[in-house]
Amino acid sequence: MNAQTELKPYVIGLDLGGTNSVFGIVDARGDIKATTAIKTQGYATVEGYVDACVEALQVIIEQVGGIEQIKAMGIGAPNGNFYNGTIEFAPNLPWAHDGVVPLAKMFSERLDNIPVGLTNDANAAAIGEMTYGVARGMKNFIVITLGTGVGSGIVINGQVLYGCDGFAGELGHVIMRRENGRSCGCGRNGCLEAYCSATGVARTARELLETTNEPSLLRELDPEKITSLDVSIAAGKGDDLANKIYQFTGHMLGEACADFAAFSSPEAFIFFGGMTKAGELIMKPIRESYEEHVLKIFKGKAQFLVSGLEGSSAAVLGASAIGWEL
Amino acid sequence: MNAQTELKPYVIGLDLGGTNSVFGIVDARGDIKATTAIKTQGYATVEGYVDACVEALQVIIEQVGGIEQIKAMGIGAPNGNFYNGTIEFAPNLPWAHDGVVPLAKMFSERLDNIPVGLTNDANAAAIGEMTYGVARGMKNFIVITLGTGVGSGIVINGQVLYGCDGFAGELGHVIMRRENGRSCGCGRNGCLEAYCSATGVARTARELLETTNEPSLLRELDPEKITSLDVSIAAGKGDDLANKIYQFTGHMLGEACADFAAFSSPEAFIFFGGMTKAGELIMKPIRESYEEHVLKIFKGKAQFLVSGLEGSSAAVLGASAIGWEL
Repeated sequence: MNAQTELKPYVIGLDLGGTNSVFGIVDARGDIKATTAIKTQGYATVEGYVDACVEALQVIIEQVGGIEQIKAMGIGAPNGNFYNGTIEFAPNLPWAHDGVVPLAKMFSERLDNIPVGLTNDANAAAIGEMTYGVARGMKNFIVITLGTGVGSGIVINGQVLYGCDGFAGELGHVIMRRENGRSCGCGRNGCLEAYCSATGVARTARELLETTNEPSLLRELDPEKITSLDVSIAAGKGDDLANKIYQFTGHMLGEACADFAAFSSPEAFIFFGGMTKAGELIMKPIRESYEEHVLKIFKGKAQFLVSGLEGSSAAVLGASAIGWEL
Repeated sequence: MNAQTELKPYVIGLDLGGTNSVFGIVDARGDIKATTAIKTQGYATVEGYVDACVEALQVIIEQVGGIEQIKAMGIGAPNGNFYNGTIEFAPNLPWAHDGVVPLAKMFSERLDNIPVGLTNDANAAAIGEMTYGVARGMKNFIVITLGTGVGSGIVINGQVLYGCDGFAGELGHVIMRRENGRSCGCGRNGCLEAYCSATGVARTARELLETTNEPSLLRELDPEKITSLDVSIAAGKGDDLANKIYQFTGHMLGEACADFAAFSSPEAFIFFGGMTKAGELIMKPIRESYEEHVLKIFKGKAQFLVSGLEGSSAAVLGASAIGWEL
């Protein structure tokens, strides 16, 4: 690294979601200096998508003083492969659903050849927590993202775990129910994600409404349209059934974390995503279940934390943090 | 490292088992130049045990030209903690069952202050495979030891995974049956070890003999005394029930490895220990079950190998390999 490189004060973060692509230009403290966004959908080719991105980016790059102020760019994207900077067979991206797209290289070529790194959103969150969040100073921890799916970013000796192919850390797809497990989007049954994602929580709600007669505020809603947010609101009003749904979800997450401890013995589990807004409603059963289930030598060692990255910009911050590592 | 250090051609390995303590002096190719052993039991204090070890060691150290020929020593021991070179609360070692014993330091002080490293036997096996065995050149793999218990040594980016406390890699204690699981020595139920260790295989044999009427050579034996070796011998003679026992065991190991892939996406799973002598009888159901259960993105990527370390000296070789890393 030469002196000139060290002086570049900003990195670009791109949170590439199925609906929106959100950009931020971020300094070393995690302050977002400029931000913009485009829709992810509506582009038939990746070239068209990158053109639209760069057009939007140019505006905010100028706002911070031009490309020479930018050290690097980080992208958090579904099915992102860090090793080769590609998005591979991403079902929700029309221009990447049946192939391998070298997105990092394409952005670098359009942005004065700055380094561009890409990984999946959960790994980006893990790097974000290490750089700006609650994992500063930690060397061994696991970020679990609770969103539409359940994702994970595993950090070992201060480095994200990518495995032999770039795809390590799919903890949403460990099997929690080997018999009569719920069907999962991955084509298998019983995955953690089928129970503990936002959609999993809604499924639990429907199951409990169908199989019990317990009164609940949730009975006022169309069962097919119940979301994890509805459950959170009902629980906040003291609804017993809604509380049971969080108990069930947290209990399973705690059991899963007990198995993860047997793998990497992390100093902390950090939960990220919308569902963490439920606070102690979800965190308390996670902690209690973990301590109940974990192997004796690991008891009392791991912290259970909620992401330290700020709400709506958390994913952009995570993505940007990849830039500092390049 | 100075020139003199580099010229030291040997390391000492100690395989510290519950019954025997086996020593070897090993060169960089994994050739054992000299070997000796003492009983592990019969010493009331750790000082007494170390005295006896050093007395036996002196003889073979002289055989290879004296302590100045020795670069370092590695110890594979139950409940061994690499970070601080201690054995902690090892139930089968009278002088370490209720405390923390600084064994690495004690050996170093008695052996001209050579560096001494210590870890558990499964991690030692993993280092051994990287140094002398089938994992040479690999950066991401998992060794699973099938013995009295089920242990594991996980290698990530070329380094053994120790976690925040030195105790990572307890994959024998992930939960495979969350309901009605077999009791495990760890005090919990449903652990992989309760099914897939040598004792687990014997339990499976007793269960199948009790719950079916299927004819089997194993019915000629006292059920309480059946061992995994008996099962192996019967299977070798074409006994159907014995084959079913291996099918069951391999099937569960394959399911477990599918979950481990979601964690670290290793390039290989390497099986170590007596049960691997059953060869394809156990390896075939492991591979088949893995490919059936693993997440689509990992299918066909991992190799399934049997340890490349030689039979009775495998554990000593593994322990000695720690010495080269110090």
